[in-house]
Amino acid sequence: MEQYPSQLLTSAIDEFSKLPGIGRKTALRLTLHLLRLEPERAIHLGESLIRLRKEVRYCKCCHNLSDSDLCQICANPKRDAATVCVVENVKEVMAIEATRQFQGLYHVLGGLISPMDGISPQQLEIDSLVERIRQSQAEGKTPINEVILALSTTMEGDLTNGYIFRQLQRFPHLKVTTLALGVSVGDEIEYADAVTLGRSILNRTPFSLQSPASSY
Amino acid sequence: MEQYPSQLLTSAIDEFSKLPGIGRKTALRLTLHLLRLEPERAIHLGESLIRLRKEVRYCKCCHNLSDSDLCQICANPKRDAATVCVVENVKEVMAIEATRQFQGLYHVLGGLISPMDGISPQQLEIDSLVERIRQSQAEGKTPINEVILALSTTMEGDLTNGYIFRQLQRFPHLKVTTLALGVSVGDEIEYADAVTLGRSILNRTPFSLQSPASSY
Repeated sequence: MEQYPSQLLTSAIDEFSKLPGIGRKTALRLTLHLLRLEPERAIHLGESLIRLRKEVRYCKCCHNLSDSDLCQICANPKRDAATVCVVENVKEVMAIEATRQFQGLYHVLGGLISPMDGISPQQLEIDSLVERIRQSQAEGKTPINEVILALSTTMEGDLTNGYIFRQLQRFPHLKVTTLALGVSVGDEIEYADAVTLGRSILNRTPFSLQSPASSY
Repeated sequence: MEQYPSQLLTSAIDEFSKLPGIGRKTALRLTLHLLRLEPERAIHLGESLIRLRKEVRYCKCCHNLSDSDLCQICANPKRDAATVCVVENVKEVMAIEATRQFQGLYHVLGGLISPMDGISPQQLEIDSLVERIRQSQAEGKTPINEVILALSTTMEGDLTNGYIFRQLQRFPHLKVTTLALGVSVGDEIEYADAVTLGRSILNRTPFSLQSPASSY
């Protein structure tokens, strides 16, 4: 390991290089950059990381990141409380929100079932999803009538979809849906993979002049 | 700009993405990573950045980064105080130290003269270099008898070399040297650039069986 001229420098480089995708060279570059900034700006970075970790909270209802007990989405009365979209993590909430196409609420699992990585259903927010649906059927509440499984189309995603689907069988009137599979907007059909193309033919939809591709 | 579900998250992402080479996607990835760590580890990162910026000091003699008034190199009595290597920045000190071939002291300029970027000689530690050489000639001190100009071989480096060289003319007995230019160890001659190859022929050295290439 290289010798740095200062213990403070060594410590900052050590901490930076523990972050994913940041090696010791990048850590050194970032650290020297901080030293060139005005002190307040570098100190502000440090403080916001400490505040983040000390003060961040998770929504009691959907387990999304939040500044308070209930996240902005769950607390918004304009959202459709009858539809819940199940996602792996906070990033997927942001990705779906960015589409502006979904008006329902979310349920963040905090991961996917993975026997390889030793992640069991009990470590995820699956029991709390079942409980949340059960409670929504109480008097005076909006009953959840659709759960959208929006997990990755990987082996872990399929496994988790299957497990949740079986758990939801106890609610006979609940609709369980999943994301449409098909070619991407902007894709050239020639290069689409066979499985995706096959799915998009099976699940073809009525043609409309307002299709997303017409915005190109 | 994307919407994040938490003010704390937004603030951490904003601060991360001000760092060089870190865009908003990477900043989000780093921030979510910090949230998965144990709180102490994330807090430790923040604290070491704050301490770095608040407590870091520069060596009074060579302007290298230091934890105290005098850096580890200047404070080391085994180093050769008669030879001073002039470098652009702290990174170059580390690079030369890593070679283990230099036993003298350093003088860190803090940049290069650059009319394009509006950096004048007065903003660099050039006057302090002249003063340091002058003071070393006082009674009872080790007089500096060689200055090695180890700046980048760029236009700014050449300009700075020239300026310092003229400033050092006032010391008639001072030897001013610069790094040898030549082909790199491990280079294929066929692909060496013409200027470098030309220099390495002009400055050829006696052949030795202990040449660095023999370690391959």
